[in-house]
Amino acid sequence: MEMEKRERKIMVAVDESQESMYALSWCLSNLVSDNVDNVKLVLLYVKPPPSVYPLDAAGYIFSSDVVSTMEKYGKDLANSVMERAGDICRKLNTTNMSMERVIGSGDAKNVICSAVKKLEADTLVMGTHSYGFFKRALLGSVSDHCAKHAKCPVVIVKHP
Amino acid sequence: MEMEKRERKIMVAVDESQESMYALSWCLSNLVSDNVDNVKLVLLYVKPPPSVYPLDAAGYIFSSDVVSTMEKYGKDLANSVMERAGDICRKLNTTNMSMERVIGSGDAKNVICSAVKKLEADTLVMGTHSYGFFKRALLGSVSDHCAKHAKCPVVIVKHP
Repeated sequence: MEMEKRERKIMVAVDESQESMYALSWCLSNLVSDNVDNVKLVLLYVKPPPSVYPLDAAGYIFSSDVVSTMEKYGKDLANSVMERAGDICRKLNTTNMSMERVIGSGDAKNVICSAVKKLEADTLVMGTHSYGFFKRALLGSVSDHCAKHAKCPVVIVKHP
Repeated sequence: MEMEKRERKIMVAVDESQESMYALSWCLSNLVSDNVDNVKLVLLYVKPPPSVYPLDAAGYIFSSDVVSTMEKYGKDLANSVMERAGDICRKLNTTNMSMERVIGSGDAKNVICSAVKKLEADTLVMGTHSYGFFKRALLGSVSDHCAKHAKCPVVIVKHP
């Protein structure tokens, strides 16, 4: 009989926002207890799809130079978010927690739900942006969508 | 300097559904660690307002006899839900966890958000009903509302 406890996989969706870093801190303080032998933390960052990078005013198609600059920007941003997230983990959790970094690309809400399914996360933790009415209407709410559609318990952490 | 850790108050919204009992189990296994010295669990049950009790076909106003029967039914239901919740707590948590039972009355989504504020809960845990389209359109989703409006992190636990 296998008596070992199955590993719990906790996925935290991180992005540039203060809200998502707060959600990560909350997760470390509340979901990851001192005994982390059977916890794996998955940090997920979703890069926007290329078409979301700002066009210039006239809507010109970018030259390949500009495209590669944009791609570099996206990559730097992903690295910077992952660095900040790593700092928070080291600060709040001194134990040798198992951690994985995953970078996806596309529409955040779909990528997050797919990642939950594919990586078999047991819990999804995410922040909420305090978008205004127009931005919310335009973008939809990523956290609303994930709370409804992700195939695991979802923790919605609001920044106080 | 006060070095003692502040008590964490975790509120679980319970009702007649299997989903809410599953959410409670999830909470005990994932949010309440073995060291529960600084955790207080608050079980919240919301009775529907009197007008929600089914009218008879003709919509007659109830005689006071019927009203008191209905009130008794509501009270019995509340007790039965709290009993089941208590059983789950005793089963999953053998330590001497501090626990409180709160019974509210009214529109569940508003009562839950008010209780979070009034009792200063640090985390709200709730299940989701898998309502069909019409019931959802009619009732709205309690968990959707609370995820948006409750003044603390909200855990939405879906029954697998």
